[in-house]
Amino acid sequence: MTQRVALATVMDRLAIDDVITEYAVTVDDGDWPAYEALFAPEGRADYTGAGGVEGPAGEVARWLTGRMRLFPVRQHLIVNRRIDLQDLGGYPGDRAWVRADYVSPMRSAREGGASGADDTAPDSVSGGRYTFELDRTDPGWRIRTVTVHEKWRRTA
Amino acid sequence: MTQRVALATVMDRLAIDDVITEYAVTVDDGDWPAYEALFAPEGRADYTGAGGVEGPAGEVARWLTGRMRLFPVRQHLIVNRRIDLQDLGGYPGDRAWVRADYVSPMRSAREGGASGADDTAPDSVSGGRYTFELDRTDPGWRIRTVTVHEKWRRTA
Amino acid sequence: MTQRVALATVMDRLAIDDVITEYAVTVDDGDWPAYEALFAPEGRADYTGAGGVEGPAGEVARWLTGRMRLFPVRQHLIVNRRIDLQDLGGYPGDRAWVRADYVSPMRSAREGGASGADDTAPDSVSGGRYTFELDRTDPGWRIRTVTVHEKWRRTA
Repeated sequence: MTQRVALATVMDRLAIDDVITEYAVTVDDGDWPAYEALFAPEGRADYTGAGGVEGPAGEVARWLTGRMRLFPVRQHLIVNRRIDLQDLGGYPGDRAWVRADYVSPMRSAREGGASGADDTAPDSVSGGRYTFELDRTDPGWRIRTVTVHEKWRRTA
Repeated sequence: MTQRVALATVMDRLAIDDVITEYAVTVDDGDWPAYEALFAPEGRADYTGAGGVEGPAGEVARWLTGRMRLFPVRQHLIVNRRIDLQDLGGYPGDRAWVRADYVSPMRSAREGGASGADDTAPDSVSGGRYTFELDRTDPGWRIRTVTVHEKWRRTA
Repeated sequence: MTQRVALATVMDRLAIDDVITEYAVTVDDGDWPAYEALFAPEGRADYTGAGGVEGPAGEVARWLTGRMRLFPVRQHLIVNRRIDLQDLGGYPGDRAWVRADYVSPMRSAREGGASGADDTAPDSVSGGRYTFELDRTDPGWRIRTVTVHEKWRRTA
């Protein structure tokens, strides 16, 4: 691998890592236009593996707008990110795959939280794995598909 | 972006990521001189968003010395790190911003922990977001400000 | 540091980070041949600090095969990764050290999970720190030793 290709590969990896982070942040901040903008034009999200919907990013963003209002406090902590870049005979291609693990504490809008009036504890914590497929587009790496596979859920 | 600038940007990002990791480790290991050394000379920490104090890094380090003695077992798990480097028309500048999410399990010093004598369970778990502002200094990237915004807390 | 050395250092760090991620994934997926392949020929794992065994990677892989069958749902979330590369007077050497924090939710095979039939909650969550020592080998970075130090454990 030449230095030029090595550096391009590193830059791709960091850019893809940024997209995954932005994905978590837009969901947790409820910034749905920014969420939708992370997807490629044909991008889709599949949350059926965690009790949610599947569809084009715009439709899913609208579903999330209502759904996440029920959980005003939330975190999507995405770790163990494995990034695989398409390899075109030694050169990075325009497709990438990310597999990552998550834990997601959420607290519903009802008064008092899970454990009493003084507590702001989550009433739901879940964990599982994300699979992302990304495309290199003119403005940068964008999500083509995101799929959630929930492994466990604890409800208070 | 030239290769030289691209590589400098990558090195800056990794160096900043290291500072955030060291921040977590020094707090969890109770290494307060190392904690304080992560800050720029004028560096300040603001923990009022999680029930703590605000002040110059040295003062906050002394407060933490006493405060963290109450919680001999602790973790500050910092993920979803978004690093923004100051952009001087295509060149990285000497200022950076990091926004990151955390979860922090802590166990107090009282006997038996939360759930019984056989258990070492945390009696407090909290989650939230950090905002860091960093300066490039002669010895490397240093924290100018760190601010905590706690989102939730579960007490056993 | 020349650009060539800087780039090599970055590539080493990303490659080592990948090994740590693969370590988590092989354990959580129960892919024991892949787990064992992450180790150098003389590689050893020491899980005595979390109630487990110590020994050559192959023996530990066989122990894990039986042990992890008891916990069909599991996550090893590894964060705060500090990577130290051996420094040979400005050049990266063939040894590296990683210290990282983890949280690990696990659910045992018994029916109904921790909190009832409708729940898939973990019945054990633990947290602690990993120490890895890695060697650069012909096929890439491999684990020479991994040591676990559990800090806390909550059992449902």
